[in-house]
Order: sequence, then C-alpha cells, then structure tokens
Amino acid sequence: MCRWAAYIGSPIFLSEIVSDPDHSLIAQSQNASRCTTSTNADGFGIAWYDQRAEPGLYRDVYPAWSDPNLRSLASQVRSALFLAHVRASTGTATSRNNCHPFVSGAWSFMHNGQIGGFDMFRKQADMAIPDALYPHRKGATDSEALFLLALGEGLATDPRGALERAVGRVETMSKAVGAAPHMRLTAALSDGQKLYAVRYASDDKAPTLFHKWSETRRGRAVVSEPLQDGEDDWQAVPPGSFCTFDGDRVAIEPFAPAS
Amino acid sequence: MCRWAAYIGSPIFLSEIVSDPDHSLIAQSQNASRCTTSTNADGFGIAWYDQRAEPGLYRDVYPAWSDPNLRSLASQVRSALFLAHVRASTGTATSRNNCHPFVSGAWSFMHNGQIGGFDMFRKQADMAIPDALYPHRKGATDSEALFLLALGEGLATDPRGALERAVGRVETMSKAVGAAPHMRLTAALSDGQKLYAVRYASDDKAPTLFHKWSETRRGRAVVSEPLQDGEDDWQAVPPGSFCTFDGDRVAIEPFAPAS
Amino acid sequence: MCRWAAYIGSPIFLSEIVSDPDHSLIAQSQNASRCTTSTNADGFGIAWYDQRAEPGLYRDVYPAWSDPNLRSLASQVRSALFLAHVRASTGTATSRNNCHPFVSGAWSFMHNGQIGGFDMFRKQADMAIPDALYPHRKGATDSEALFLLALGEGLATDPRGALERAVGRVETMSKAVGAAPHMRLTAALSDGQKLYAVRYASDDKAPTLFHKWSETRRGRAVVSEPLQDGEDDWQAVPPGSFCTFDGDRVAIEPFAPAS
Amino acid sequence: MCRWAAYIGSPIFLSEIVSDPDHSLIAQSQNASRCTTSTNADGFGIAWYDQRAEPGLYRDVYPAWSDPNLRSLASQVRSALFLAHVRASTGTATSRNNCHPFVSGAWSFMHNGQIGGFDMFRKQADMAIPDALYPHRKGATDSEALFLLALGEGLATDPRGALERAVGRVETMSKAVGAAPHMRLTAALSDGQKLYAVRYASDDKAPTLFHKWSETRRGRAVVSEPLQDGEDDWQAVPPGSFCTFDGDRVAIEPFAPAS
Repeated sequence: MCRWAAYIGSPIFLSEIVSDPDHSLIAQSQNASRCTTSTNADGFGIAWYDQRAEPGLYRDVYPAWSDPNLRSLASQVRSALFLAHVRASTGTATSRNNCHPFVSGAWSFMHNGQIGGFDMFRKQADMAIPDALYPHRKGATDSEALFLLALGEGLATDPRGALERAVGRVETMSKAVGAAPHMRLTAALSDGQKLYAVRYASDDKAPTLFHKWSETRRGRAVVSEPLQDGEDDWQAVPPGSFCTFDGDRVAIEPFAPAS
Repeated sequence: MCRWAAYIGSPIFLSEIVSDPDHSLIAQSQNASRCTTSTNADGFGIAWYDQRAEPGLYRDVYPAWSDPNLRSLASQVRSALFLAHVRASTGTATSRNNCHPFVSGAWSFMHNGQIGGFDMFRKQADMAIPDALYPHRKGATDSEALFLLALGEGLATDPRGALERAVGRVETMSKAVGAAPHMRLTAALSDGQKLYAVRYASDDKAPTLFHKWSETRRGRAVVSEPLQDGEDDWQAVPPGSFCTFDGDRVAIEPFAPAS
Repeated sequence: MCRWAAYIGSPIFLSEIVSDPDHSLIAQSQNASRCTTSTNADGFGIAWYDQRAEPGLYRDVYPAWSDPNLRSLASQVRSALFLAHVRASTGTATSRNNCHPFVSGAWSFMHNGQIGGFDMFRKQADMAIPDALYPHRKGATDSEALFLLALGEGLATDPRGALERAVGRVETMSKAVGAAPHMRLTAALSDGQKLYAVRYASDDKAPTLFHKWSETRRGRAVVSEPLQDGEDDWQAVPPGSFCTFDGDRVAIEPFAPAS
Repeated sequence: MCRWAAYIGSPIFLSEIVSDPDHSLIAQSQNASRCTTSTNADGFGIAWYDQRAEPGLYRDVYPAWSDPNLRSLASQVRSALFLAHVRASTGTATSRNNCHPFVSGAWSFMHNGQIGGFDMFRKQADMAIPDALYPHRKGATDSEALFLLALGEGLATDPRGALERAVGRVETMSKAVGAAPHMRLTAALSDGQKLYAVRYASDDKAPTLFHKWSETRRGRAVVSEPLQDGEDDWQAVPPGSFCTFDGDRVAIEPFAPAS
C-alpha cells in the first residue's frame, strides 16, 4: 500500500501538501495511519502541471523524508494541479521506473492498492497494452500497466469509461488466476485540466479516499488519508466512486468496472 | 556500445580483470579504444560464481570508475568464473534493472551490440518470452529480452543452438521493421560451469572479441577489447563464431542464427 | 538510533546474520523492537574480513530491505568476522559517506547512539582529529569523528583505553555545550583479528547490547538486539562494559570514559 | 575540471542553457572541448532563484545526460537567475554533498578548477571556516571550503574583496605545502540579485570564462565554455578578472588574491 495526495486550485507551493502539514505526505512516508504498511519508503514521485501541456516529473527511489532535492523542489515550485506519491513496494524492485506517478503525454497517473496475482498474469496484461503505447511501458508494476491499458481504452475522451474498462480487464485476469483480493484501488489521474480520482475494490475493503476544499487557499486537496491529525472536515468518498474535480466543482459518479 | 570482460580458470580476485590492468574494465569505462562510444558510464555489473549454483550479482547505475563499493568488492572477492560489464546506454533508461549481466537461475548473460529498431518491436520480443520466464523480465533492454528468449529456446541443453534460434528470431523482427543494422553482438554467458561467448553481426561490422590464456594465472580472459595497451598476444575471434571455454580448452564453432 | 550486528567465529555466509533470521538485521531495518525508531531506512553497510588485512566495505543509502545487491552479496560472501549496520539518521544527510561501518586501514567501526549537541561542536571534534587521519574524514557524522578520534588515541595498541579517551573527549565537548544526553553508545569495532564492543551511556539509558555463542555454528553473534523473536538465551551486556571477543573467548571489562 | 553555465536576465526555462543548445551543459557533460577532461560525469547540480530568497537546489551523482529528473526539471522551471554545473571529480568521492552548486542562505556558488595539494591541508582549510558557518560544511571538497571561507570573509557586503581574501588564504596554504598549481579557478556565485564570476590562476593557465548577451532573450549567459559550436560572438574574460552581472550591465574589475 502506498500513500498519495493531489491538488487542484489556485497555485500553491508543492510543500503545502508535500511537506508542511502535520501529517504531510512526507510525514506519511514515515508514519502513515490508515493503511497496513505504516512505512512508505520505497521511492516517491511528483507530477506537476505548470506552463507546458506535459507535467514535470520528479521521481526517485529514496525514502521521501531523506531526499533534500524533494524538499527543495517542493518549497520552490508552485502549481495549480499536481500529484504526489510515496511508495511501499508490494514486491516489484525499487527503481525510478517503478515509482509513481506515471506520465504519458499530458496524462499523469498514480495508484494505491493491490491487484491479486499480478505476477502470474503480467505478461497477459502487458500484451493487452496497445502497440503504440508499449514504448511507455518502462517498468514492471501493475500500476503502470493499468494506466497504459486505460490510455488504450480511451482515457482522453472518456476517463471514467476507459478506467472502468481497464480495471475490468485486469480484474478479470486476476479472477482467472484465482488470487484474491482481485482489485483494490484508489487512484488519481489528470490531463492537466481536471483532476480525477477513483475508489473501488472487488471486495469490501476499498482503500480510503478523502477530499477537502480550502476557502483560504481556493483549492482542493484529494488524498489517500487526511493531511492533518484530528481534522474531521475531510469528506470521505464512498467505495465504487469516480470523482471529477474541475476548478471548485466536484462530480461523483458510480464506478463499476466492465466485466 | 558497451565493454565487457569475463574470466574462467583458477580463482583470482575480480580486481585482476576489473581494475588492476592498464586498460582494465574500469579504465575502459572512462576511455575505451575499440568502440564508437569511448565513455561507458551508464552503469556496470558483475556476476560471479563461487560457492553456490547461482552467481552473485552486483549492479549499479553509476559510472564504474566512481563506485567505491565496486572497487572494494573487486579487491575482496575471488572467483574462478565471472562476467563484468560497463554500459553505454543506447537509449534505455539508466536503471539497475537495465544493467548487465542479467541472471536467471544459474545462468548469467551480458551483451555488447545493437539490435536495429528494437523499440519498434519490443512488445513483439516480450511476447515471445515464454510465460514461465516472463517474471524475470525486469527491465526494458534488448539484451535482457534476448537472454530470456535464449533460455526459452533451450540454453541449458544446447547453448549454441538456443542462442542461434533466439538471435534469429530477433533478427527477423528487426528485418521486418527495416531498421539496420539488424544485429550486431558480442555476448558472454555462463551456467557456472563453462563460459560461452559469441561474435556475430548481420552486416560486416561485428563488434570485436578477444581471448587470452595466462599460464601464470592458469586462467583465460575473454574480452570485448584487450586489457593492456600494446599487447599483441590476444587472440581475435572471427565474426560468426560461438566459443566454448571449458577449463583451459577452447572450442570455436560457427554461429549462424536460424532464419 | 540504528541497529547493528557483528559476528566472529567459523566462516558463515553474511546472510546468516543479515537476512536469514526471523529478526535479521534486514528485518530490523523495517521493524526494530528495542529502539525508539522502529524504521532504520537511511542506509546500511557491511564490513567483512576475508583474505586481506583491510575489510571489504559495501555501503549504500537505500533501505536495506530493498537492495538486491545487499541480498546477493550476503548470500555469496562468507566471512569469519564481519560488522553490519542499518541506519536511522539523527539529522545528518543520507550519503554513503555517512553510512556505517567506517573503515581506516585494517580497522572497522560502527555505532548506535546519540551524542548530545554534536552539531554545535562538530568543528571542535573535527579539529581534534590528528592531521594524519584527517583525510579519512569523509562525511559529517558524530560516529566517524569518534572513530577517528579513537584511532588517534591509539586504538591499535590499547583499544579500550583509546576508546575511553575518545569518548571522554567527545562527552566533555557535549557537556560544555550543555546538550543532554551527552553520550549514549553501543559500538562494535575490529582490527580483523578480534571483535570489540562497548556499551555505555552518560545517563542511565545505555542502548542495549547482546551476544550469543552458537555451538553448531562455532561462532558468536554480537548485536544491538536479538536476531530471533522469543529467544531468551542471548546474554545482555551490562552498561559501562567493554567486550573483547577473541575466538570463542569473551572478556568483559569496565568501560569508563576519561574525564 | 568541471563545466558550468549561469544565466541572468528575463526568465527563461533552465533547458535553454542546460539541455537545448548544441553544446549545452548536458552535451558538455559527455563531450567538453576546452578542458582537460572531456567527460564530466561525476554528478551535476542546479541552483535557481524564483519566488524565495533562497535558491532551489537540485543535485545528484549521476551523469547529467542520463538523469530524466534533470531533463524534466529543466524543461519546466523558469528562472531569471540560475547556476548549473557538471562535475568531473578530481578525487573526492561522488556524493550529493560534493556536487556543486553549494548553497548557504541566499548565496549559491559553483567552481571549476584546481587547488594544489588540497588533501594535504584540508584540515587547515576547514579550521579556517568560522564556527557559525561550520554546520554548512557537508562534504569534503575544496570548492565548498572556499565558498564557506568567502562567506566568512564578508561575501554579503564585499563580494570581490571577500573572495580575494578567501582565495588568498587558500593559495597561501597551497604554497606552504608546495603543490603546484596552487590555484586555478573560474567560479560563479550569486546572492539572488546579481551574478558574479571570477577567472584567476596563480600560474598562466586560468580556466576559460565567457559571457554573451542575447538581445532576443534579454539575458546573459556566463559559461566555462561556449554553448554553441562555431560561435564567435562570445566575449572572453581575461585572467585576473572579477565580473559583476547586474541586469544587462557588466562590470569587470581586477581580481588579485590577498597575499
């Protein structure tokens, strides 16, 4: 299990999410509360949108808490839309290519969760990636495969539908090898315009997903767990939801993988 | 183009090949003579056989000349059979998973060369890897794919034939996308008992391959370029050759990829 | 606080201490029991003695649990005397030069503990390092400074006395700046012949130190915490002790820093 | 010898200096022309000023050409004043703490050159660093020591004088140990307002220094060697010069270390 945080709104320093809060993403890398692995030290990454269509991408394999480059970057770079992730590997090697977010063109994607038996059907999942997208397959994670499958299913024009189809395909592969839990995910993704998030599981244990609007900041944080201790004003997203965050607007629709 | 050196014989310190000679592998990482890229600074690796069937494997993404761990390891570890490699990337990311040698079970493999248009048919090459071996596909290099294909073609029982079939399959893929040169390779591989090497190209520019027996050391070095300047007692292996080094014996057979 | 383990006896694979036991050093890097920081993910290192007077040294800045080089090395290399360490930084940067063990000539040294206010008197400590040893000052840790001071005090001829004098000098510096706790340490050190360990604190909270002889293995493990859960046959060393492990013999003397 | 480039003017993407030109700094990391070491692969760094008084700092130990984070950062971040460096180690370990630029408060500093016999008098140089600045001594390079000495000599109020005094002190130490060349340097430094550069040697081999105003870009590049091949409109700075670049203005004064 990993931890992640995303933001959409008026430009803020990345540090306002990544390192400043009591329970910032960097703090969660050492001591997460709401997931089975409290240490998320197998790499980190940030994708941020600024003046280009493609996001900037900074990923490395160190624990987030010990990387001075990350601290410096987070305190200098301002962005109106960004995704940040700390990783607890579920088996794949610690490698920059296996760190989230993954980026392809203007799209970025990050993920927390489990896909049962992925090692047993990774070749099948890789085969399902369209030829044109295969050069973007750099690592060996389930997350990158899921992202490329979703791109292949039409993420650009139908984000929810494409993700439902991609998750559906992978969940079917997992069921075929009989490894439970077949699918647990909370993911965030963006095309640089809107921020999307999904919470879903094939069983009743969907990883948590919260969001919160800040009036002073004029922006919204979307997170795998709240960024401050003792705060009760985070809105929990129910399982089986697909969220679209567009400016200050929130649309939550049902999310049901195609079977 | 990369540089590599291998050894079979009485046990020696790795440093006797890796760092001690005038034109050692580490020296070649800074200043190779016989290849188009004189700097080979995109990672390195050593696979050595000692007391276990599986080789030890040490790989990292730094230039070989600046890694104190490599120097220390090379001056401490003795082995009767080892493979060492310095990498000049032809495009793939600098990542430990993309560094040579590659290891699977008792087999190790390292490679210098080019496979024309590999990025265009990488998915096809990956799909040709047998399901049982696919979990060993950790990176994205042509070299690792070639190794796994050769394992799938029966490297364990017929090293030359398996490599001919694997090279043939990949060369055919390269020809299909029309990217020349289709195949240039010098590779070394081992099962921990014998050392094998191949020199081959689909055109007339096969990368160089040399070997030399040392009577004092009671062992043989097999290299992509000689380890000392001005030495003329290295034996050049002709293109289209498959070499088997077994103790002090050398067998050189023709190497012709299956078409 | 860090965790460490050392061994002296008949040669064993490093993995028998580093990765195989239930509560191996790698396991402790993720989940230590007897120290305030349960995660020790700010680098690791091994110094092992084999066929040369100087030990081999392998250190890196990753979490020990995620480094495939460490696993491979530990499963290949056998040694009759070695020191292994996992680090939880108390502030200094994550850098190979700040990872334990530290090595100078035949001597190796590793340390777990705290030296109160070290940042305030680091210059003073550095200045106390003899000129001839100053080139070995590569990083900025209190541990490396303490080691070089002890070498300067005559570690080679009087290990206990030299360490008492070095610890005494640093403790005096700490007292002068008034930052408690002035000194808490458990350290292990070796010249390649004998293994030494010390447990000491200027208050009543000396970090734990244990050792245990294995009859089957014909060797002794010396550790900051036991390597198996639920084992009660580890011998605890009392605070204020200097241990000399020579073959199967143990000598425990009082340790009192010169004031 | 290292290579570096700095910029002051209207904000540009870092990539316009770092990666886009024919002979960009990244290109120079692989193939520099005007220095004795054509490969500068022992790390790199960028310090850039943006919305805070302190610069952002991104440094790593890889060759600049192979770091995707650097490429991404350079293509996203815009700055009106920045320093960028690629390193060829003259002996000190490859470590982030030994990579340029060095930063202390608002000041940044980077350096190309040689200080004869520095290893022999490093302790003396370190001792000369004022106590208050000593916590900023993170690595072991001559460059960082020179920077901290200059800060101690009053860089904030008298940049040229402070640097003359610092260089003079170090040159005197070098002469005392008798290791020539005593001092060769081209350095760039900034407080976030102005950009300073110095070219000096104690013999007649001062490393090169050039600058060039771009009317279209409304900014000036200051470099150790020109960023395009075949360009003849770069202005060479004579040896023994201290340059102040303030907006589009250039002031060049004599630079003579205090003896």
